[in-house]
Amino acid sequence: MLCNRQRLLLEQKTSYTLKAPTKRLASKRGCCQQQTRTIANSSSEAASTSGGNGAAGRCYLVGAGPGPADYLTMRAVKLIGAADAIVYDDLGCEDALSYARPTAALVYVGKRGGKAESLKQPQIDQIIVDLCSQGKQVVRLKGGCPAVFSRVASEMSALDAAAIPYELVPGVSSALAAPLFAGVPLTHVSLSPSFTVVSGHDVAGTDWAAFRGLPTLVVLMAGRNLGQIARRLVQDAGWAPDTPMAVVRSAGLPEQRTWLTSLGSAEADLVEAGQLSPCIVVVGKVAATGNYART
Amino acid sequence: MLCNRQRLLLEQKTSYTLKAPTKRLASKRGCCQQQTRTIANSSSEAASTSGGNGAAGRCYLVGAGPGPADYLTMRAVKLIGAADAIVYDDLGCEDALSYARPTAALVYVGKRGGKAESLKQPQIDQIIVDLCSQGKQVVRLKGGCPAVFSRVASEMSALDAAAIPYELVPGVSSALAAPLFAGVPLTHVSLSPSFTVVSGHDVAGTDWAAFRGLPTLVVLMAGRNLGQIARRLVQDAGWAPDTPMAVVRSAGLPEQRTWLTSLGSAEADLVEAGQLSPCIVVVGKVAATGNYART
Repeated sequence: MLCNRQRLLLEQKTSYTLKAPTKRLASKRGCCQQQTRTIANSSSEAASTSGGNGAAGRCYLVGAGPGPADYLTMRAVKLIGAADAIVYDDLGCEDALSYARPTAALVYVGKRGGKAESLKQPQIDQIIVDLCSQGKQVVRLKGGCPAVFSRVASEMSALDAAAIPYELVPGVSSALAAPLFAGVPLTHVSLSPSFTVVSGHDVAGTDWAAFRGLPTLVVLMAGRNLGQIARRLVQDAGWAPDTPMAVVRSAGLPEQRTWLTSLGSAEADLVEAGQLSPCIVVVGKVAATGNYART
Repeated sequence: MLCNRQRLLLEQKTSYTLKAPTKRLASKRGCCQQQTRTIANSSSEAASTSGGNGAAGRCYLVGAGPGPADYLTMRAVKLIGAADAIVYDDLGCEDALSYARPTAALVYVGKRGGKAESLKQPQIDQIIVDLCSQGKQVVRLKGGCPAVFSRVASEMSALDAAAIPYELVPGVSSALAAPLFAGVPLTHVSLSPSFTVVSGHDVAGTDWAAFRGLPTLVVLMAGRNLGQIARRLVQDAGWAPDTPMAVVRSAGLPEQRTWLTSLGSAEADLVEAGQLSPCIVVVGKVAATGNYART
């Protein structure tokens, strides 16, 4: 199985990373019906599902949800099980790979934490186009939903330019699921008539003042910059220092942990928490409604 | 099968609506493994999944996604298939019911369009508590994700007050999926560093001025008030009249249709569109990036 994957990558003469199947993947495959189909069958099935040509390559830009396979959509499971190649990220994708066929190429292109050896987005775009151009059914698997901070627009442009058909497959976004796992719905009939989602990755490059007067803010990738973000919301956006803030780490996983603090106290309260990444932060009155006893 | 359902409802002496299975439900059930389990088995399975007591009632507050069964999560399918009773809404829930066991009670509590005969939220809360108090495994099925405009906070409070255990199960939210089905990811590396989700149901009661300076706004339930909403965004929030606006009707369904217009032209452009409900609107530069030829 591993030999097949390696040969495939050599033929493509690219430098991306080969992910060897883990023990867990191997054991899960035992109960996966899709594994017994041949490439030809699966390609024609995937194509027929979407009305394409069985001989042509096609890309499915698929959301993997927040991580546990329970939150994969049925469409994602079907497409992953029929794919010739799966190009996948770090967060939320590992469990989904257990539904891949043993002969599928698993191509890791994660960029987590800005690692020096990470691939740049144009390289990822090219990998996807190359695989599809070889006639393969390709799943581009992304944590959460492709609608949210996934750079999917760049991949869509590259596929459009190469005239390769594709389908966007939504997933369960961690932006909504992580608060929910902590018992916090993002809207509330009196406390939260709207919510806003932003990344906490680039604090300096974000216009925090634009969030003035909003009831609820969800900050993804907030772990490293939590103190700075809290300060900017008070200083730039005029949010009260006693505004509740919920911090959800490892949402949906057995090791999930949630803290309830406030903008003004976040830094002091969480100094002992240690590594907060990956975490999602909810700021606003609705954050205090979470049932933290359950988390 | 219908007799079982009716007897269950009579025993409960409540006035909520009994939904008879449709032809489509009946035919889909033919390929659904869950239907052969007994109530006792399914109850104990559902409980064991969540660590509960097999004899006690329990509620699962479950997102059904945007409508087509393809976008149900695997956890939703499992819980629906094991439920003794399913309390469900209008939008996005119908297809999911095809996974219910033939003996499950299907209780319709939809409030769509503010119908006069619709149940009020406290009545829905009471129905859920009553069913769980009878020892049933209850799925409270909501279109999209319980995190977004689902009144789930009210149901959580009622369940807490009755000391009934529950689990929140996220789903694919239409707020993110509908734009994606029209080829519009809500974030974009240069055009959209954040997005905000609001309901268009109560135009007069919404603080539109709070959205000043934001890049991207998603308006749910916008069909009836589209012209008013566009005017308020220009007048109250200072959005430019030429800001792109995408209107997605019946997202994810075969009859999906998408229009690209602008805040200033929306009313004139869509006067010929007829009934726009159910629709989801995306306002902001990113709305113009959609690949409308595919929709």
